[in-house]
Amino acid sequence: MRIHTLIDAVQERILSQRLLNRIMTPEEAAKGFKTGMTVCTSGFGTGYPRLIPQALAKLGEAKEMTLINAAARGVKHIGALIEGGCLKKLIGFQWSEIGRNAINAGKLEFIDCHLSQISSKIQRGHFGEIDVAIIECCKIYEDGSFVPGVSGGIVETLVDCSDKIFLELNLAIPKSLEGIHDLHVPLGKSFSSPTERAGLTYCKCPLDKIAGIVINEEIDTDLVFPEVKPLHKEIANQVVRLLKNEIAKGAIPEDFTFQCGTGLVINCVLIEMMKMGFKNLKMYTEVLGEQALLGLLDGTISEASTTAMDITPSGFSTLYDNIEKLKERVIIRSLDLSNGSAQILPMELVSLNGVLEADIYGNVNSSHAYGSHMVNGLGGSNDFCRNAKISIFSTASTSKGGAISRIVPMVSHVDSTEHDTDFIVTEWGFADLRGKSPKERVSLMIENCAHPDYREMLWDYYNGAVEKCGPCQTPHNLPLALSWHQRFLDTGSMKQTT
Amino acid sequence: MRIHTLIDAVQERILSQRLLNRIMTPEEAAKGFKTGMTVCTSGFGTGYPRLIPQALAKLGEAKEMTLINAAARGVKHIGALIEGGCLKKLIGFQWSEIGRNAINAGKLEFIDCHLSQISSKIQRGHFGEIDVAIIECCKIYEDGSFVPGVSGGIVETLVDCSDKIFLELNLAIPKSLEGIHDLHVPLGKSFSSPTERAGLTYCKCPLDKIAGIVINEEIDTDLVFPEVKPLHKEIANQVVRLLKNEIAKGAIPEDFTFQCGTGLVINCVLIEMMKMGFKNLKMYTEVLGEQALLGLLDGTISEASTTAMDITPSGFSTLYDNIEKLKERVIIRSLDLSNGSAQILPMELVSLNGVLEADIYGNVNSSHAYGSHMVNGLGGSNDFCRNAKISIFSTASTSKGGAISRIVPMVSHVDSTEHDTDFIVTEWGFADLRGKSPKERVSLMIENCAHPDYREMLWDYYNGAVEKCGPCQTPHNLPLALSWHQRFLDTGSMKQTT
Repeated sequence: MRIHTLIDAVQERILSQRLLNRIMTPEEAAKGFKTGMTVCTSGFGTGYPRLIPQALAKLGEAKEMTLINAAARGVKHIGALIEGGCLKKLIGFQWSEIGRNAINAGKLEFIDCHLSQISSKIQRGHFGEIDVAIIECCKIYEDGSFVPGVSGGIVETLVDCSDKIFLELNLAIPKSLEGIHDLHVPLGKSFSSPTERAGLTYCKCPLDKIAGIVINEEIDTDLVFPEVKPLHKEIANQVVRLLKNEIAKGAIPEDFTFQCGTGLVINCVLIEMMKMGFKNLKMYTEVLGEQALLGLLDGTISEASTTAMDITPSGFSTLYDNIEKLKERVIIRSLDLSNGSAQILPMELVSLNGVLEADIYGNVNSSHAYGSHMVNGLGGSNDFCRNAKISIFSTASTSKGGAISRIVPMVSHVDSTEHDTDFIVTEWGFADLRGKSPKERVSLMIENCAHPDYREMLWDYYNGAVEKCGPCQTPHNLPLALSWHQRFLDTGSMKQTT
Repeated sequence: MRIHTLIDAVQERILSQRLLNRIMTPEEAAKGFKTGMTVCTSGFGTGYPRLIPQALAKLGEAKEMTLINAAARGVKHIGALIEGGCLKKLIGFQWSEIGRNAINAGKLEFIDCHLSQISSKIQRGHFGEIDVAIIECCKIYEDGSFVPGVSGGIVETLVDCSDKIFLELNLAIPKSLEGIHDLHVPLGKSFSSPTERAGLTYCKCPLDKIAGIVINEEIDTDLVFPEVKPLHKEIANQVVRLLKNEIAKGAIPEDFTFQCGTGLVINCVLIEMMKMGFKNLKMYTEVLGEQALLGLLDGTISEASTTAMDITPSGFSTLYDNIEKLKERVIIRSLDLSNGSAQILPMELVSLNGVLEADIYGNVNSSHAYGSHMVNGLGGSNDFCRNAKISIFSTASTSKGGAISRIVPMVSHVDSTEHDTDFIVTEWGFADLRGKSPKERVSLMIENCAHPDYREMLWDYYNGAVEKCGPCQTPHNLPLALSWHQRFLDTGSMKQTT
């Protein structure tokens, strides 16, 4: 019975007789991979292949491979490949714990990229030839073209640049997802609104490139949503206050267009905006979280363009239960368009991103702890803040129970420079850095953003720096500039022992 | 006789009777300026007003003004205003010695911007209201519209955002310059070739905004070209070797499109390319130097788009003696288009810029000495390297007679991150950072770029960092990361005393 249902389901989704003959087990597909190969996959927090990576890990024959993907994560993807000892290099966004540990142990070389550029870097050969691509999809047409899963990402580029492609056809994705994508958009095209369509609802793919098809029946995420704490709400409230200020001043319209990540603070911002009756907001974003889906259903958000859904199983229920309505309001694009400057600029975006630490001059570190250890990659953060109308970075003012100040004398790594940051927000308030010289930013960063426990220390640093090198452009006392980070490494706290 | 010639010349260039009545002396114009005003001017190394700024300085009544410009410099502009004690704040690119000294002495607040964004930041009100604009031009039409000088810059924006404009009509610019500009290009327009035209050859300006016209007869530059040394040629030879490599590999075509600054190394690169018979190169650039004009005349370069000429008096002779020929091959655009990502991306540019220092991981400092003192602003360097197909930063491996290494453990300020730099070049060779993880970049930076005197010290730093924090993403030894800069400040040399 189940087998017949499965056969029916597969036949409804693979429209080519020739391709039906290429259905294989993950283990059979995994045999096509060899040590040293460069493998590319689809995916963000969702939309990544899982069966072939797990089979590869289990088989354990292909070692030292390079994995290129946009932002795929998950224990059944990057997790399995790392545990299976299959990888020597990872290219793209990193945000899994297992990836972080492997990278910082020196077991995995990692190339962090602006996500807007990963497709062009693949096409320009920065990472060499691609040997195999693995792509999740939910339907395959007679000519080999297919409908991807809920991630657009770099799928178009993978098909262009790979001669050998394995598809993971996911039966857990409703067929009705077909129609949500907007792929093969003409080069350089910008959009008058987030959901303006300019391309096709599927990814073109020559049938002969498809080396095999593996059938998956699992929902494609292992994301879980961590607990919201009062602190997240406090930061979110400051962000919302800032947005209302800007609306009141006429700097942004009431139905502004925004980009945001999917962290807890952002979630609280969305909840707060829904509560306060914001209406008809628009999103032009890289990832769409489940709170945004709820906002799209209740009219807080009228339309959204994204390259991927980053949702938990409950978000998938929301999506699939309301697919017809959401398909009218959401477009999934390729990553080079979701994050492209030519597309972002005309949107006059409000950009909302998290940050690891910021310094008193407004430089931002999104990726490295103590300047050396990878936490998460920079992803699209600089794509958006560099090209947004208003770029907002938020963070708690401290972490590790107050042992770390997120506002520091000098960031230990720079991902977005002082020129790319308009606002820094913490639970204490926000610093509006627009039109301020570096020295003018200092008091805003200290008084509005830093935790009170660290304010005097920050002033001591700044005043000492001015004493040492004069009231120059960006006063720094070099021997002390990174001493807070070192003190944390030495003593477990950035606080001075008295 | 001279007076009659002058009257004729003026009447030929001011086509409105009403505006002829608004001709005034610089001193009369200067009386309209008050303490605390925000003043905007046209200009780069050329094309900036000179008579009103000098009169303002001499009059000495208007103090504590904010000056916004794109990249104007020169002793008769920013020099006069600073010496006259007129300014408290400067916004835009800084590259004059007098500006540098005032900024680092704490006498002048300076806001450094990506030059692509200065127009939008003015329009968005980051710098408040503009009280007066001063713009150099070479012809004024009946309705108030005018032909700017040899700098497009932010002229369009100044007219949009100012209610009161003084024009400095420069009779030293031949009338035949008319036709070289391409202004008022539709928003978001990108170009199929550098000299594709999409706008008007003049800047629209309501007649009523023009508060006065001052007549200038001087050539508009005080740029001088410093002496070329063998070292500059050695660096240039490495750049040319790199370009030929890329052509041989098919990464760029033989007639590639490039952007470049106007420093000595770039000049030598152009001379070398002319010697080697490069043909039909194209430029899509921010500033066009005199060597590029010669390249345009001899066919090395077939066409160029720029926002300004940065040329000495001899370059003006070349330009004006060949104006008809050059007008067919050169377009002067607005700064937001010359430096705009939407325009740069489709050009698939080779970007050639100088750099103050780079670190072993490929981060670049374009602006600050020892992390604190402004040298020059970052200008358009990040606009281009962020969006170019191939971004090349060049520098001598040392300066101050070897006391400073330009390749350091950690840059003391970041203007372009590791994600934006493809090549670092010195007289010793080049590091191709594309597709390399941070740790993989280290040996390229040390062995190919650093001066041999500093290589062992750099390896010591790196190996010590790995020992201290393990082979993580970006090994750093924080207490030593900026110690080279501090040692230079303390001892006059980055070299270790044994």
